Amino acid sequence: MDEYYMQQALTIAQYAQGRTSPNPLVGAVIVKDGRIVGQGWHRQAGTPHAEIHALAQAGDLAKGATVYVTLEPCSHHGRTGPCADALIQAGVRKVVAAMADPNPLVAGNGLNRLRAAGIEVVEGILSAEAARLNEVFIKWIVTGMPWAVLKTAMSLDGKIAAYTGHSQWITGAAARAYVHKLRDTHEGILVGIGTVLADNPELTARLPAAGRNPVRIIVDSMARTPLNAKVVTDGQAQTIIAVGREAPADRVAALTSKGVEVLTLDQTPAGINLRQLFKILGERRITSILVEGGATINASVFTANLIDKVYCFIAPKIIGGRTAPTPVGGTGAPAVDQALMLEDLRTEAIGADILITGYLTGREGHNVYRTCGRTRQS
Amino acid sequence: MDEYYMQQALTIAQYAQGRTSPNPLVGAVIVKDGRIVGQGWHRQAGTPHAEIHALAQAGDLAKGATVYVTLEPCSHHGRTGPCADALIQAGVRKVVAAMADPNPLVAGNGLNRLRAAGIEVVEGILSAEAARLNEVFIKWIVTGMPWAVLKTAMSLDGKIAAYTGHSQWITGAAARAYVHKLRDTHEGILVGIGTVLADNPELTARLPAAGRNPVRIIVDSMARTPLNAKVVTDGQAQTIIAVGREAPADRVAALTSKGVEVLTLDQTPAGINLRQLFKILGERRITSILVEGGATINASVFTANLIDKVYCFIAPKIIGGRTAPTPVGGTGAPAVDQALMLEDLRTEAIGADILITGYLTGREGHNVYRTCGRTRQS
Repeated sequence: MDEYYMQQALTIAQYAQGRTSPNPLVGAVIVKDGRIVGQGWHRQAGTPHAEIHALAQAGDLAKGATVYVTLEPCSHHGRTGPCADALIQAGVRKVVAAMADPNPLVAGNGLNRLRAAGIEVVEGILSAEAARLNEVFIKWIVTGMPWAVLKTAMSLDGKIAAYTGHSQWITGAAARAYVHKLRDTHEGILVGIGTVLADNPELTARLPAAGRNPVRIIVDSMARTPLNAKVVTDGQAQTIIAVGREAPADRVAALTSKGVEVLTLDQTPAGINLRQLFKILGERRITSILVEGGATINASVFTANLIDKVYCFIAPKIIGGRTAPTPVGGTGAPAVDQALMLEDLRTEAIGADILITGYLTGREGHNVYRTCGRTRQS
Repeated sequence: MDEYYMQQALTIAQYAQGRTSPNPLVGAVIVKDGRIVGQGWHRQAGTPHAEIHALAQAGDLAKGATVYVTLEPCSHHGRTGPCADALIQAGVRKVVAAMADPNPLVAGNGLNRLRAAGIEVVEGILSAEAARLNEVFIKWIVTGMPWAVLKTAMSLDGKIAAYTGHSQWITGAAARAYVHKLRDTHEGILVGIGTVLADNPELTARLPAAGRNPVRIIVDSMARTPLNAKVVTDGQAQTIIAVGREAPADRVAALTSKGVEVLTLDQTPAGINLRQLFKILGERRITSILVEGGATINASVFTANLIDKVYCFIAPKIIGGRTAPTPVGGTGAPAVDQALMLEDLRTEAIGADILITGYLTGREGHNVYRTCGRTRQS
C-alpha cells in the first residue's frame, strides 16, 4: 500500500503546478489504521507546507499514524516553521518520504531529526516520480539555473514556417491552447527580437480560466524592440529586455522610460551571453523558463546547453521548401553523431497534431536529478 | 460473431503482405455450427484464391456453412476459376464479404452470382479495415497508378542530415531494420540521382530471413548514374533508370549495355515527368513504390501528387543548422494553409525513434478508397 498512498500524495502535490515557486511541489497523506485521515499539499511559497495542512486535517488522529510525503520534511526555519518538528509534536509513528530534499539547507536533516525523535523513516518510495514532479525545483536549487523548456511546432517535413515566413498556424487550436497552459505554469517566457519584430506577440497565457502570465524576456542584443511593441506597452506582464553592451544608449534609455527593464549583458561571438542571462534570472527566483524562440534563438540556447526539456508539436502537413525555416538554425552539428540527444521520449495526440516531449541527456545537473530519483531505503 | 470471424479472415489475409501483387490480399474463414472448419488466404498471383484453400480444408463440412471473406469472391476466369462458382458448388449457405471487389472485372458480379444461386449474402462487415488491408490493390486497380509510400527520417528539429551532408545515421538500428521490411513488401523503390551519387546505395531488402528486393528505380534526368554504381553492377535486383529526353545518348547507351533498363521520359520545367514514370510502372504491374529520396525528389513526388502514405521516422536528437537539409525541399508552399495535409496519423516507438505514419488527404483516388470502405448491407 506504500506506493498507493505515495501516488495519492504525488497526485495532490501537482494541483499547485507552477504556483509554488521557488518552493517545490509537495503532497502529504496521513494514514491511520488503513484509512486516510488527512491530506494536504503546498499551495504557494510563504503559506503552510503540505504536512501542516495534512496534520491540521487529521487532528488527534495523527498520533501513531503514518505520514506519506513526496519530499523530505523541512528542518529549517524558512517563512514557515520546520515540518519535522510539527510531525514529532503530532506524535506520528512513521514517515515515508519519496525522496530526500535536494535543498542544501535540508539534505537529510529533516529525516535525521525524525529518526532522532524515534520515528520510523522509510525513504525512496516512488522516488523517480517524485524527482520528475519537482524537476524544476531540483535543477534550480542544485545549480542556481532556471529549468528551461523549449517549445517548437513544425510540419511533418520539419518546417516552422513557409519559405515566405508565413507561419500562422502550423498547429491546430488544441495545440495552441496547450501552449497557453505551458505559459501559465512557467515563470518566464523567452523569445528573440526576430519573433517580436515579425509577430509582435503578447506572450501571455490566454486560458478560459484565469491564467498567470510569465515574465517576458526578449533577447535583443541591439535593443531593437519597437517602443510600441505589445510587450512594451500592454502592461499585461513584466518585460525584461536583454541587450548587449554595444546596444545604443538612446534605445536603452527609451525602452527603460517605457517601464520595461533592460538588462545589459556581455557579448560573445554568438550574440549576448545567454548563460549569464539565465544565471541572473535564476538569482531572481525565476525557476522555470519557456523558450518559444525562432530558429536562431533556439540554436543559441541549445548551443549554450541551457535547455532541459523539449516540447515539439508536429502538425500533419507537408509544407516543403528548401529555404523554409526549421526549429533550430545556427550552424548546427557537423555530423549527426555530434547532435544533442534526448531521452524519455513521450508522444501524445493533441487535437490533430502530435506532441513529442523529451529530456536533453547532457543537460546541466542531469546526474543530480538521477541521484534524487534513486530508490533508497533507510 | 460476424466481426470476430471477419477479423480472423483479415488477419490471415495479411500473412501474404507484399507477395500477392498484382492481386489483392484475401482471407477466407468457413464456419459451420459455430466452429471454424476451414480457412485460407491468397498467397501469390497465379495460385489458388483464399476461398479455394478454405473450401479444400473444410471438405464436406462446407455444405450449409457460412463463409467469411475479406473481398467479394471473383466471378471471372483469370488464371484460376471463379471462386463464386466454387462456393456455389460446395453448397455453402451464406457468404459474408467485407467489401465488394473494386476490380471492374468483378464489381458486384461475384456477389450477384451467389445471390442468384440462392446463397444469402451479407456485405460490409469490417469494410474499412478490409479497404485499408488492400489500399495498394485498390488504388492500382482503380487508377492504374502505383500506391506510393514516402519514407523519410529526420531529427526532432527537422533535419535529414547535418549541414555538411553527413547523415549516417539519423535513426537507430531498429528503425533501419523496419525500413528493410518496407523494402521487402514494396515492389519498387525510388530514389533520385543525388542519393545514388552521395551514398551509392544497394536499395535492397536486407532482412535476417529471406527478403525480396524491390525493383530499383533511379530518377536521373541527365543519365549521370555511374557505370560502377552498385545499382548498376551488383545484380541483386532489376534496375530502371528514368532519364529525360535531353540525356546524352552515349550515357544512355553505356548504362543500357550494363544491363539496366533506361526509360526515356518527357521533361517538364520541374524535371522529368514523374507522373508519366509512375503510369508506366503501374502498367508494368508494379503496384507499390517506396520513395526513399532526398529533399529534392521528395518535393517532386509530393508536388506531382503521387504520394499516398508517409512513413516519417523521428530521431530523438537535435542537429541544428540553418542550411541542414530537411525531408522536403523544392520551392515549397508559400503559406502554411497551402500545405499538403495528412490524416489517420499513427505514432509508434521503434527502438529509440518514433515513427509517424499518415495518409495524404488529397491523394489520387482518395474518394474511391473511402467508398470501398463504406459499410453496406444487402
